[in-house]
Amino acid sequence: MPTTDAVIGAEALVHADELGIDTHGIRLLTQAAYAPSLRDGTVDPKATPAIVQESPSSAVLDGRHGFGPVAATRAMELAVAKARATGAAFVAVTNSSHFGAAAHYALLAVSHGFIGLSMTIGGLGVVPTNGRGRRLGINVISMAAPAAGDHPFLLDMATSVVSGGRLELARMRNQSVPLGWLVDADGRPTTNPDDFNQGGALLPLGGSPETGGYKGYGLSMMVDVLAGLLSGAGFAAQLGDTLTRPHFQGAIDVSSFQQLDRFTAMMDEMMETLRATEPMDEDCPVLVPGDKKFAAERDRTIHGIPLHPDVVARLRRLANDLGVPFPETVKG
Amino acid sequence: MPTTDAVIGAEALVHADELGIDTHGIRLLTQAAYAPSLRDGTVDPKATPAIVQESPSSAVLDGRHGFGPVAATRAMELAVAKARATGAAFVAVTNSSHFGAAAHYALLAVSHGFIGLSMTIGGLGVVPTNGRGRRLGINVISMAAPAAGDHPFLLDMATSVVSGGRLELARMRNQSVPLGWLVDADGRPTTNPDDFNQGGALLPLGGSPETGGYKGYGLSMMVDVLAGLLSGAGFAAQLGDTLTRPHFQGAIDVSSFQQLDRFTAMMDEMMETLRATEPMDEDCPVLVPGDKKFAAERDRTIHGIPLHPDVVARLRRLANDLGVPFPETVKG
Repeated sequence: MPTTDAVIGAEALVHADELGIDTHGIRLLTQAAYAPSLRDGTVDPKATPAIVQESPSSAVLDGRHGFGPVAATRAMELAVAKARATGAAFVAVTNSSHFGAAAHYALLAVSHGFIGLSMTIGGLGVVPTNGRGRRLGINVISMAAPAAGDHPFLLDMATSVVSGGRLELARMRNQSVPLGWLVDADGRPTTNPDDFNQGGALLPLGGSPETGGYKGYGLSMMVDVLAGLLSGAGFAAQLGDTLTRPHFQGAIDVSSFQQLDRFTAMMDEMMETLRATEPMDEDCPVLVPGDKKFAAERDRTIHGIPLHPDVVARLRRLANDLGVPFPETVKG
Repeated sequence: MPTTDAVIGAEALVHADELGIDTHGIRLLTQAAYAPSLRDGTVDPKATPAIVQESPSSAVLDGRHGFGPVAATRAMELAVAKARATGAAFVAVTNSSHFGAAAHYALLAVSHGFIGLSMTIGGLGVVPTNGRGRRLGINVISMAAPAAGDHPFLLDMATSVVSGGRLELARMRNQSVPLGWLVDADGRPTTNPDDFNQGGALLPLGGSPETGGYKGYGLSMMVDVLAGLLSGAGFAAQLGDTLTRPHFQGAIDVSSFQQLDRFTAMMDEMMETLRATEPMDEDCPVLVPGDKKFAAERDRTIHGIPLHPDVVARLRRLANDLGVPFPETVKG
């Protein structure tokens, strides 16, 4: 893999770790979609993404079956460049793979003073409302917007009640999960996270039809339309259990709507107003999207990133296999 | 009001009724934000929206304190025209009022073969996760995308568990509501819809923090950022109980990404695949976003629109007050 692309990938994964998104950090390296796929050629480490369709505010980027973070970064850079010229732009990405954390790309736009939107189709794992079985992807929507104060606004969410990572964490810790997260293979609500791998499925955000589950279902399809259909890659149920992941990257130039400093001052005022909401429980203050992630980033920049010993052991084995020296600073 | 603007408003409200969105149909005419505001000048019937900021793919439209459906329609028409030239475009709207059903505007883009996105800040009525009291608007997101077959994809959702209209319906029918929709003034879960008007609040989509309520909270803020901050109008908590409603209208030209007929064929395939999901209950088939609304439209085009007798009585009184002949075809 060219060094510049390796750096892009490393930055995407380490950034997720810094933000406390442990499920999408460097632990991904040993997962099927990363090192194993790059080694067996399922994901081409030398692929160079190519623009296959373009207009002033849109493009389709072909990842050429390469590394997800590379295609996704190029796509967001292209969206930002186009938005700088026109005000707003979107790039749909086909023939790509897992891109890590969507938040990383939304924040890339923010580093230019832009609003960033990043979406990706995820692995098949969500049941449509009133149905049985997996027909929807664990699709993801992230939006970030610049602020003047402490940190940007950062929404980063799966369109299911929880992400697959939250479930995996519960399995690793042998914990049960709250009712309302998933159903078993027969469509019955369950608190056993192991049921997911036995043909179960996560519920869409909102849960049951009574509490708006059809809205999470609709948001999941929105990602299928924008990432999967506009790129031509296909929708989640069509992609099935392949490692193909279509993306959708968007950038909005705030200054084409409002003076940037006026906008960021309003962002701060909005976030402060919401944080000042009277809490139900004094020990549990009202936060805004991004507060937890940027608190993690401050902490980890000082104290380092805590890695699970199993993750370190797996990374050490991978380094060994590849004949790459393992950094002494990484401890389990 | 100029006739063209009156027609725009009538079409927006009747279209909502046709689609079965009764809460946003012509019953709105007698609500505070419509006839009363147009009569006392709070909403200026003669206002002409003006573009105050513009780039090839963006604009800020000033509704000049006029009728919401007029500004919202002009904004979507502008977004479509710009997207035709550049591929994608967004228009943020300030100094506007209630615009009716967001679905109407998203479908306006679809009538041009475009993807439509329509958002609006709604009345203050949602509690932020872990908080007490109303600090978020009943904000709305609609997205529509063209398909080849029966009807387009149509997502139309409040970012709260349910819309204010669903609550009002339960109140009118003296029914209790499911646990998980709202909390009372003390932040306690309640099934009594009357608690909403006693200082209670709706929960954001996802409900409790455990089942992802912070995601609905984040989606609500996303609408505040795009509609309220990009337009310069302000965020929901700032607008408070005023009748000011900022909007955000977007259009994406499908053909700048994919051949339109290829895209619409994939849309049909996706919708068919999801409808073919094995249902949990044979009497309750799996639907896709839009199925219910377009079934209502087919039915109402043939059999007419059922109106509640109270709505007809109120409309008749309004016609009387205004000295406007009441159509004989409208019966209660």
